[in-house]
Amino acid sequence: MSAVARKTRDDAPSGNASLKSEFVAFKTNRIVEVASHLFYERGYSSCTLDNVADKLGVTKPFLYSYFKNKEAILAAICEVGISESLAALEATLAGEHQGYRERLAELVRQVGRIVIDRQEYVVVYQREMKHLSATDHERILRLRHSFDHQIAELIREGVEAGEFREDTDSFVAVWIGGLISWIPTWYSPAGHRTADEVIDQLVAAALRLAGAEKPK
Amino acid sequence: MSAVARKTRDDAPSGNASLKSEFVAFKTNRIVEVASHLFYERGYSSCTLDNVADKLGVTKPFLYSYFKNKEAILAAICEVGISESLAALEATLAGEHQGYRERLAELVRQVGRIVIDRQEYVVVYQREMKHLSATDHERILRLRHSFDHQIAELIREGVEAGEFREDTDSFVAVWIGGLISWIPTWYSPAGHRTADEVIDQLVAAALRLAGAEKPK
Repeated sequence: MSAVARKTRDDAPSGNASLKSEFVAFKTNRIVEVASHLFYERGYSSCTLDNVADKLGVTKPFLYSYFKNKEAILAAICEVGISESLAALEATLAGEHQGYRERLAELVRQVGRIVIDRQEYVVVYQREMKHLSATDHERILRLRHSFDHQIAELIREGVEAGEFREDTDSFVAVWIGGLISWIPTWYSPAGHRTADEVIDQLVAAALRLAGAEKPK
Repeated sequence: MSAVARKTRDDAPSGNASLKSEFVAFKTNRIVEVASHLFYERGYSSCTLDNVADKLGVTKPFLYSYFKNKEAILAAICEVGISESLAALEATLAGEHQGYRERLAELVRQVGRIVIDRQEYVVVYQREMKHLSATDHERILRLRHSFDHQIAELIREGVEAGEFREDTDSFVAVWIGGLISWIPTWYSPAGHRTADEVIDQLVAAALRLAGAEKPK
């Protein structure tokens, strides 16, 4: 389930309203998905809500019943990648992976998969973030900082535990974030390398940066 | 001298026309610089040539005597970062640095400096490349591929020479390119870290990725 759907679900009252809230989540996701593709193809500034409504075969008032305006749709798009990444991070840290090396490898693997699956959303975020309202921009930035901070913490603990090289600066978290964030700008499903190969290489690169490779 | 200026210089006839060609280069650079800042602040789609002319205090026909249209200015902006990086790469490879480790460190240092100095140009490229003509897009992509290819070649040779770890895949060049390209999206001159600190960390990260750290 996507971050958008999850958020809508969590906000919904429990009990017999749940089917209705699933419909809401489904429609919200469809709007975000179609708008993301349009913004990706044509640019946010060149797209109107009419374009989004036309593409979905709905009316503009229908859109307004789910999103306040075009910027609110952009904010939802921009939040998908980081929300899903944070969820993956939290699940990995709470999971059963033994040791820091395995945890780092697993979460980089999962987040790499997310940015490849959500390629268009991430690229729209990177290109169009300047069109976000100050509030949305700040909120998403806080999510990203939280992500970087938790990776830095994991690295610090891994160093302390002696699993990562002792000369590893936890600022390496920012470089690992860069490796991951950069993938959507160059990866092509039609390219030489499969998503799995790219993710394997990403994990290897992240472990090198963290001084966390398996001893031979 | 910037890539734009260099290009204009190289195209100019030698001899007594050189002062004139320097004027041309100066004006071309000023147009690119002012347009880059406008596109960075407001977005390419939202800016007109009138905005660029107003900001420079010149007429639109003046702009047309240097650039065919708005897209040609965008292309010049987008080319600055990669052209200067390629020039730095070629100078480093032709220079006196001993060994592959020193060469890699030196060129990553120089290119890191370029993307920080040219931050707005690089961000405009990353955000607005979809507005480039197919010809300009392809040309700039070829320059980027040439850069990646030469870094990959350097890594391959460093591995063969035994300076870099033998299990280093030359695809690491793409990850190093990612580290560098990602800097302009997060680095802030007003942030905690100085440009020099960021560049030192970048060099250390690139050497780790290449398995090229100094032995202790």
